[in-house]
Amino acid sequence: MNMYEIIQKKRDGGRLSAGEIDYFISGIVAGSIPDYQASALLMAIYFQKMDYEETLQLTKAMRDSGDIADLSEIPGIKVDKHSTGGVGDKTTMIIAPMAAAAGIPVAKMSGRALGFTGGTIDKLEAIPGFRTRLAMSEFKHLVVSHGIAVMGQTADVAKADKIIYALRDVTATVENMSLIASSIMSKKLASGSDAILLDVKCGSGAFMKNEEQAEELAEMLVRIGKDAGRRTAAVISDMEQPLGNAVGNALEVSEAIATLKGEGPKDITELSVYLAGMMIWLGGKADSGEEGIRIAEESIDSGAALDKFRQFVEGQGGEAGVITDASLMGTAEASLAVKAETDGYVTSLSAEKIGMASLYSGAGRTVKDSPVDLNAGVLLECKTGDKVSRGSTLATVFGEKTKLAAAAAEVKKAYRIGRDITAGRSIIRKTVGF
Amino acid sequence: MNMYEIIQKKRDGGRLSAGEIDYFISGIVAGSIPDYQASALLMAIYFQKMDYEETLQLTKAMRDSGDIADLSEIPGIKVDKHSTGGVGDKTTMIIAPMAAAAGIPVAKMSGRALGFTGGTIDKLEAIPGFRTRLAMSEFKHLVVSHGIAVMGQTADVAKADKIIYALRDVTATVENMSLIASSIMSKKLASGSDAILLDVKCGSGAFMKNEEQAEELAEMLVRIGKDAGRRTAAVISDMEQPLGNAVGNALEVSEAIATLKGEGPKDITELSVYLAGMMIWLGGKADSGEEGIRIAEESIDSGAALDKFRQFVEGQGGEAGVITDASLMGTAEASLAVKAETDGYVTSLSAEKIGMASLYSGAGRTVKDSPVDLNAGVLLECKTGDKVSRGSTLATVFGEKTKLAAAAAEVKKAYRIGRDITAGRSIIRKTVGF
Repeated sequence: MNMYEIIQKKRDGGRLSAGEIDYFISGIVAGSIPDYQASALLMAIYFQKMDYEETLQLTKAMRDSGDIADLSEIPGIKVDKHSTGGVGDKTTMIIAPMAAAAGIPVAKMSGRALGFTGGTIDKLEAIPGFRTRLAMSEFKHLVVSHGIAVMGQTADVAKADKIIYALRDVTATVENMSLIASSIMSKKLASGSDAILLDVKCGSGAFMKNEEQAEELAEMLVRIGKDAGRRTAAVISDMEQPLGNAVGNALEVSEAIATLKGEGPKDITELSVYLAGMMIWLGGKADSGEEGIRIAEESIDSGAALDKFRQFVEGQGGEAGVITDASLMGTAEASLAVKAETDGYVTSLSAEKIGMASLYSGAGRTVKDSPVDLNAGVLLECKTGDKVSRGSTLATVFGEKTKLAAAAAEVKKAYRIGRDITAGRSIIRKTVGF
Repeated sequence: MNMYEIIQKKRDGGRLSAGEIDYFISGIVAGSIPDYQASALLMAIYFQKMDYEETLQLTKAMRDSGDIADLSEIPGIKVDKHSTGGVGDKTTMIIAPMAAAAGIPVAKMSGRALGFTGGTIDKLEAIPGFRTRLAMSEFKHLVVSHGIAVMGQTADVAKADKIIYALRDVTATVENMSLIASSIMSKKLASGSDAILLDVKCGSGAFMKNEEQAEELAEMLVRIGKDAGRRTAAVISDMEQPLGNAVGNALEVSEAIATLKGEGPKDITELSVYLAGMMIWLGGKADSGEEGIRIAEESIDSGAALDKFRQFVEGQGGEAGVITDASLMGTAEASLAVKAETDGYVTSLSAEKIGMASLYSGAGRTVKDSPVDLNAGVLLECKTGDKVSRGSTLATVFGEKTKLAAAAAEVKKAYRIGRDITAGRSIIRKTVGF
């Protein structure tokens, strides 16, 4: 067996055997297969695709390429949740406390990621004192004592995924279902939870632009999860426009807190309750999704979810005062309002352009390890279907003074104002695996 | 412009602009584009292909990526010749003296190459004392004084081709017409001759397995040559079975000398006369191909071609005594005859398997810079259509004693013996560009 033959086989449309996939994955981790052969294979996979069996095998090989967390000493059915990523997605900070309040142990590893804003880890670090670098022992201890902990993913989980992802990112081989699915699931399977809930984003602001693609990916993810022995389900949710009103790190923490208080925007509230309900059901604390949703709603109404959030923040050394005083997270250097130029209705609001505006404001990163302005971002005042008047504020951008003009210009491009009311789409598009 | 966008564009079936192609080529030579991006692009090109304009641009960019020989101080129309490679192809050693004898200045740069035997340079080095490392000034001087010189291609010609070829070789991206054509023509165009004759091999022992492929390549090569301002033509010649009877370095030198004496095998004689005739016509020393062929034939009959070969060998420091005494090139450690096991006719003789046998005998190399046994190889006694009797010798393998069994076994596999006479194919299949 050699790498040339493996590339050639896939190039010619062949099916890679389990042995060949293992050879590839172990070779890239060991450094015996050079990057240029790996990227040639990735491009061949892009064109010739992988079938389900190959994808499952690739996922397992990637899962086994690094450390596998052992959470067995934490009692209960641990439920993990993963979002394929979108603009303004702060659901982890909301649903983890909701699920934990319902008795689901939440032991979540999250990333920083490149993108329009930081990842969940960056967002949590907007809370003064919040520690995301935890030793595995402390992480488990927190989950046992409070039912919840979130830590940064260590470099040793799914090592092959890191190598492959870095290559895909610079060789235009990201957009392949099997490579996407194996990347997501290898990390989830290595993270040690018993059940996995996937939030597959769909729309112009997401990786999956249309519902067929999203459904194909969701079905593949669920099938892999089940075949790897995990209770797995997926929700396909809308990402035509940003989720909620806040895009940016500290801004999103504030919106998450508001949502836990029952004061969040309608879309983020609806999605959070739904996802938390599914987690509660997957974790065996409800007999149906509907019951899970009711329990999730109660966790907000009763204040239990907010209490759990406080425990969570304090448990990881964070300043829980941010729950009542967001200014403890600091403030942006400056802000700039973007005004409507005509009367009418918002007919569409591009999640992608708002994401770019957030990036321009300093809230995100395009290069690994570059610093993020935790107070930068965009706060939307109007979303699709809203009535606007000439001169009224559509959104406000926050960040360093010199960055605001570019961010504001991008926000302006994101809004389309017309004469007709457009109904916003339902936030939940579909479910898979329930 | 960046490499990611170029990969993505080609991946999606787009046409690369001249600027994008130049960016890629100058980037790989400068080292600013990493191998893994280059190989991803090469695989995308493999799948999406390049059109003619892209191929021409790629060829020009590769030509310009290194030194370009200036042969203008050599009077006359310099004619270069290139073969796409096959088994037993020693034509350069024959036709270069024939063309030179007819007054065509032959200033040829050749390679060592990986393969079944060494390249032309290795073969010539089987002649004691023969120097292939020449300074450009000496090379030109030899052409001016004797009308002929052959030197090893310097590393500085078409630098991008070397980088790309090394990558293609290990990433299963060799088999693409545009990449093959640009690799061949970039070097030929940089070698400074005024006219180019291409010998495109076709058949199971060649890279182009069938006539359509060979014709497509030949037409592309000729079109590129003409568009780059060179008089260019191509001959498609048969490579179903090996060319001539000798495969191996010193063995091929002997067969080349025999052919120059008018005592060569029919196929190699016919092809050599044809190719030399075309070179004579391309170089303006004949008004038609037919006249060129007549002049070429005369150069053998009169002994002028053999005299030119002697001058050529002596000019580069070689022992011209090999012309009458092949043993001056040394002898192989051992030999082993392969016998026919049944009576009948040779119905086919696989060039590829004879090539492998030659490689096993030690005559070729699979790894760059590895030594070649100049006396190893295969000498065929029977070819397609020949009658054989049980126990008669089909071929003899030469080389180190320990290597002969494997080589002989491969020779045995190369022969198919049957009851019916199969006519060998015509050695000249087609011409393009005349």
